[in-house]
Amino acid sequence: MSLRARRTRDRILEASLRLFNEQGAPHVTTNDIAQELGISPGNLHYHFRHKGDIVAELFARFRARADAILAVPAGRGTNVEDVWLFLHLLFEQVRDHRFLFRDLDELVSRDRRLRASLADVVDGVARTAGDLFRGLRAAGELRAGDEEIDALAQSVAMTVTYWLSYRALRPSPLVGEDPVGRGVFQALVAVAPFLRGESRSLLAGLSRRYLE
Amino acid sequence: MSLRARRTRDRILEASLRLFNEQGAPHVTTNDIAQELGISPGNLHYHFRHKGDIVAELFARFRARADAILAVPAGRGTNVEDVWLFLHLLFEQVRDHRFLFRDLDELVSRDRRLRASLADVVDGVARTAGDLFRGLRAAGELRAGDEEIDALAQSVAMTVTYWLSYRALRPSPLVGEDPVGRGVFQALVAVAPFLRGESRSLLAGLSRRYLE
Repeated sequence: MSLRARRTRDRILEASLRLFNEQGAPHVTTNDIAQELGISPGNLHYHFRHKGDIVAELFARFRARADAILAVPAGRGTNVEDVWLFLHLLFEQVRDHRFLFRDLDELVSRDRRLRASLADVVDGVARTAGDLFRGLRAAGELRAGDEEIDALAQSVAMTVTYWLSYRALRPSPLVGEDPVGRGVFQALVAVAPFLRGESRSLLAGLSRRYLE
Repeated sequence: MSLRARRTRDRILEASLRLFNEQGAPHVTTNDIAQELGISPGNLHYHFRHKGDIVAELFARFRARADAILAVPAGRGTNVEDVWLFLHLLFEQVRDHRFLFRDLDELVSRDRRLRASLADVVDGVARTAGDLFRGLRAAGELRAGDEEIDALAQSVAMTVTYWLSYRALRPSPLVGEDPVGRGVFQALVAVAPFLRGESRSLLAGLSRRYLE
């Protein structure tokens, strides 16, 4: 592919991401995207035959970033800042690719591979969260049984996946409505009371920053 | 309306609820419903002109039941069994009307009134959960700040709304996969560590029953 063709391809992806995030992928056509860029529908079609191909490519980019965040090492040295950073980076990706989460049911009901791949990511979030909590327990910073840790990890994964849909559904705004911040806060509130003294204060401090 | 017409109307609603729950409302046509009941499409059309009218009527029935559960009195005498019962009854309604929650984004994106009405219910869940938690605090059974109580109430409402979607998305089964039980357990895990000694043991006992 020529440098120029590659640049066009990247511009299509950028414009699509912006339009999808603003209007929801189901409401944006390939013609809308071509018009936004001032290119012909034929030129766009040369790069992506269907809107689904653009969605798939954007999802692949999201997944590569999420996978890098999920690869966080967890073990004896785990501390609460690791948990906070993990969630903060994840919610940033969710915000940047919010079209995936705002119309989640609709997107995955139309595309089995997207569904399986998204389920892998969500599974990975629950697994890494569980590893981090067990790491905190091993470091003596968290007190919880195995069932509690599993349920907390599920709760974190559910919050990452559905917080934006939940907020979009409800009418009244909340304090600190930045979607990253409020999502991280929401996920951390469930974890905080399982922490011991200092870790708990530290996490409370990190969480509270989002509400200011 | 004659007794016979009323019975047909009720049978249509029952069959629709069953088919919607099994296959998802977007995948069921009014012809499927007529066929299931062995009545003519014209007869069905006499009672409900569009599938959306059936969805709206089923939603109205769900809402009436949810509103009754949300009207739980909360005050000084609140105990943890009130919280448990509130969640148990709510999740039973979610299970019985699971088609509303499995394709939530898709259903509400097509129907603005349904969206507003569902948002009211979800708002009511968060409000009642918050009232119950403040009642527990007034009774000396729960220790949490106002922000924590708000976030816990949001977490409960999000779990009630999205637990089924979340579970449907993920591939691997969990222990105690009954949707009512696991949903209640999931919602209660976040609350338990804020409770004091005896209330915490009592809630742990109530929660654990779902995993047996």
